Amino acid sequence: MEQILIQPLTRKAFQPFGDIIDTKEAENFTINNGMCQRFHDLTPIETAGEDARPLINIFRCQPYDLPLELKMVERHPLGSQAFVPLSQNPFLVIVAEDEDGRAIHLRAFLTEPGQGINFHRNTWHGVLTALNEACDFLVVDRGGEDNNLEECHFSEPFLVLAP
Amino acid sequence: MEQILIQPLTRKAFQPFGDIIDTKEAENFTINNGMCQRFHDLTPIETAGEDARPLINIFRCQPYDLPLELKMVERHPLGSQAFVPLSQNPFLVIVAEDEDGRAIHLRAFLTEPGQGINFHRNTWHGVLTALNEACDFLVVDRGGEDNNLEECHFSEPFLVLAP
Repeated sequence: MEQILIQPLTRKAFQPFGDIIDTKEAENFTINNGMCQRFHDLTPIETAGEDARPLINIFRCQPYDLPLELKMVERHPLGSQAFVPLSQNPFLVIVAEDEDGRAIHLRAFLTEPGQGINFHRNTWHGVLTALNEACDFLVVDRGGEDNNLEECHFSEPFLVLAP
Repeated sequence: MEQILIQPLTRKAFQPFGDIIDTKEAENFTINNGMCQRFHDLTPIETAGEDARPLINIFRCQPYDLPLELKMVERHPLGSQAFVPLSQNPFLVIVAEDEDGRAIHLRAFLTEPGQGINFHRNTWHGVLTALNEACDFLVVDRGGEDNNLEECHFSEPFLVLAP
């Protein structure tokens, strides 16, 4: 089985696929008489389609075991999808490049505690993957009528594992 | 000083002002081969104005002491504003009704651990009010050019305190 080694999640490595949602290096200013720091506009919410609108949801994800057999990835052609953990548990972020509608060059990242991410519209990614224990995530994605899901199934699964 | 006694935050009591963002009583369904429960579309994101768009931000709020002297509330005529704590610390939610552009009938609620809230557009509310320690919040609100802030200052502050 082809192996994918899990790497630390960094802005530079993740930049082609989406944004990291945290306070590091983020533009910020002070509001509310100095009592609150606003880390502003951290990532774009994309919602294409005439009747589309952004949704706020909570996903409760059961934990996956490592090494992980990865059989498919998916993408959302009409919207971004942001996942912000409501705990300090790191989670696994799998992304891929596209070649003629197929996912190639897969990569796997482990978040730092508290880091969230936003997948840009139409970016191949693995499903939400908690580790160690069940975790809740605040999710901002797209609602609307048109089909917003494509899947890419692999004839041979990949093995995702810690380096 | 007129007193406002802090009450527990419940769906019923908060309903005129906004939505509670948590998993209790929320519509949900299972995705990702049974590994994830999606608590779906928990509250509307409102963004009025031609160039308006929803923003994802993190607010880092310093803690306030109780009893709290409340000198003003504010509202956002063009957008909702959602606050979801990235910790389990309860926070204080102050809201008011409107009468001819002035905030009246103030109420104060204490969240349960993990509860977030979304203020409906144009709802009078106190600024984000962490308690006990500095807390981070994921905030979904509105970006755009038009003025989206109104303030109501009180000639006599209110005293917000635990019952």
